[in-house]
Amino acid sequence: MDEYYMRQALTIAQYALGRTTPNPLVGAIVVKDGRIVGQGWHRKAGTAHAEIHALNHAGELARDATLYVTLEPCSHCGLTGPCTDAVIQSGVKKVVVAMADPNPLVAGKGIALLRNAGIEVTEGVLAQDAAKLNEVFIKWISCGLPFGVLKTAMSLDGKIACHTGCSKWITGTEARSYVHRLRDRYDGIMVGIGTILADDPELTVRLPAGGRNPVRIIVDSYARTPLTAKVVTDRKAPTIIAVTPGAPASQVASLQDAGVEVLTIEPGPNGVNLHALFQSLGCRKITSVLVEGGAQINASALAANIVDKLYCFIAPKLIGGVNAPGPIGGCGAAIMDHAISLEDIEYEHIGEDILVIANIFKREGRNVYRTCGRIG
Amino acid sequence: MDEYYMRQALTIAQYALGRTTPNPLVGAIVVKDGRIVGQGWHRKAGTAHAEIHALNHAGELARDATLYVTLEPCSHCGLTGPCTDAVIQSGVKKVVVAMADPNPLVAGKGIALLRNAGIEVTEGVLAQDAAKLNEVFIKWISCGLPFGVLKTAMSLDGKIACHTGCSKWITGTEARSYVHRLRDRYDGIMVGIGTILADDPELTVRLPAGGRNPVRIIVDSYARTPLTAKVVTDRKAPTIIAVTPGAPASQVASLQDAGVEVLTIEPGPNGVNLHALFQSLGCRKITSVLVEGGAQINASALAANIVDKLYCFIAPKLIGGVNAPGPIGGCGAAIMDHAISLEDIEYEHIGEDILVIANIFKREGRNVYRTCGRIG
Repeated sequence: MDEYYMRQALTIAQYALGRTTPNPLVGAIVVKDGRIVGQGWHRKAGTAHAEIHALNHAGELARDATLYVTLEPCSHCGLTGPCTDAVIQSGVKKVVVAMADPNPLVAGKGIALLRNAGIEVTEGVLAQDAAKLNEVFIKWISCGLPFGVLKTAMSLDGKIACHTGCSKWITGTEARSYVHRLRDRYDGIMVGIGTILADDPELTVRLPAGGRNPVRIIVDSYARTPLTAKVVTDRKAPTIIAVTPGAPASQVASLQDAGVEVLTIEPGPNGVNLHALFQSLGCRKITSVLVEGGAQINASALAANIVDKLYCFIAPKLIGGVNAPGPIGGCGAAIMDHAISLEDIEYEHIGEDILVIANIFKREGRNVYRTCGRIG
Repeated sequence: MDEYYMRQALTIAQYALGRTTPNPLVGAIVVKDGRIVGQGWHRKAGTAHAEIHALNHAGELARDATLYVTLEPCSHCGLTGPCTDAVIQSGVKKVVVAMADPNPLVAGKGIALLRNAGIEVTEGVLAQDAAKLNEVFIKWISCGLPFGVLKTAMSLDGKIACHTGCSKWITGTEARSYVHRLRDRYDGIMVGIGTILADDPELTVRLPAGGRNPVRIIVDSYARTPLTAKVVTDRKAPTIIAVTPGAPASQVASLQDAGVEVLTIEPGPNGVNLHALFQSLGCRKITSVLVEGGAQINASALAANIVDKLYCFIAPKLIGGVNAPGPIGGCGAAIMDHAISLEDIEYEHIGEDILVIANIFKREGRNVYRTCGRIG
């Protein structure tokens, strides 16, 4: 029965997907005598947490009830005050928690406070689902790096364009609309300067019901982004341009004058060091980055070990051609054992296309994947 | 209710998958007073048809019963005598047929004979499923060409090997075993001389329960197959080597002396004309050919418009690399609209891999897909 209510708490938590950053997604349900008497979810950073919504909803009925919450109630004083106090004051008899707060500074302290107050606490109910729900938050809060998401789209023979360069369109309208939902969900969107120069994209969310534009991040070692590029001029979302110390100071100054933020990042073997860039973005509370670039930046992101999740759209067509490009450039793996392993594979039909979602399997010291060529 | 029994007839017909060539797969069910009193399926060419098995099984109970059969009973005298006679003599009152015999010389005659004998006939019950069951037979009997099946295996970034050539193994053991089930099902298996020279493959079925080896077909314009190749020496299955008139006569003679059949096929722009080869194979009652070659022969087979179905295994790994090969070589499509469209997309997990099964969408005059480079 605990799992039954916890699943509902996980479901309502998702209503705020993409809206709580840099906070986690949390859902809470108050159950008394077998009936749900209160429910709530965290809607936006800086506003009330899920537990508060659920307990307020339950009101006096919270007394002697059971509270289901997808993440350990917070014990620290954030923008909205510690939830543990509110839980204790509500008079609930039992709290069921899916997982402890992954913040290493907090983990377990909230649960200990509840227990000290005489409340029975059950931990670990649907812990795996709760961890999946907050994969972004867990990555960012534990290591300071944004959760890296790679999106690719290719034909069923692994091509992202014809040998002539023609690439409009590989996937159908539903898949392209799904990509806008991804942009709406993740904090940042990253491309290389090649994509800016070739396509001058907006990198904004275009959904019928609107959406929240991600921060635009351009990997541009030598500050070649034109001052006339949409990401510079349209003011539709913040733009960060990542350059190396080798970028001409005058161009950097022009870009800054035009209103974009320029981050000077230490150079890696192929231009901007993407791991260092991700550290810098993490410090700016960008908890997730959708990499939507070309084959070269995809390869570099994989080589830099900053990618955690892959969305691969596969269109029902064959393009063929030895010289038609594939989704990941660079040198690639030299032997099959060096290929990057994927896990937790899911797939579904999105319109006429197939979407494969997978996590990058990370084993300490496992990433021997190499890249070559310059990015940005 | 007709669909209910027809689905069972379709199910039992499949028990003989790969065993009835060049005959179709057929299942039959005799139903009386709501009970199945007889069932049977065609097991092997030259033996009794499904209807005969089912009627024999029913015996006297066939009188006034309903016969469900997945294909129109035959009216012509083959190796086993016309089924229509047996159906009429059995005394069944009604016959439900999924589809008419696609043989243009027969279509509808069996049904007419039954009606003339006073038997009620219903046509078209689960006709689409019946056509799918016999997609191989329908292709071959209607146009004389084998049903072309392309099997590929690639990583989730569309690579069939690392840039170094390392390709063992892309897919897992279950997927590799599934390929042996495909070999067991289809009549022929085709590769180019490049695969023979590189791998010296057996091209046989290796399944725990044994299997039926397909006829091995080597596309080898200049008769370069070594006399020591396994396909020449091992005698495990018939081997056909397709050469052009330009192949040295002495080498052709040596191969023939070694016991393989050599077919001299008119040359196309890239070596053996694959469409002409397929016509020749069709005349030899090879009703289906599994193309299991490299990127170049895959491209040529697609350009020759001989491929009807695709099995694409996708392994959960990323290989990367601009120079790592993809599954389809040649030039490929020049513009997106020239890409080959796939339809009836199905997908499933096969062990750790994903298998996508699709049909090649054929529209008259639609194939503008081009190839280049030499095969065989």
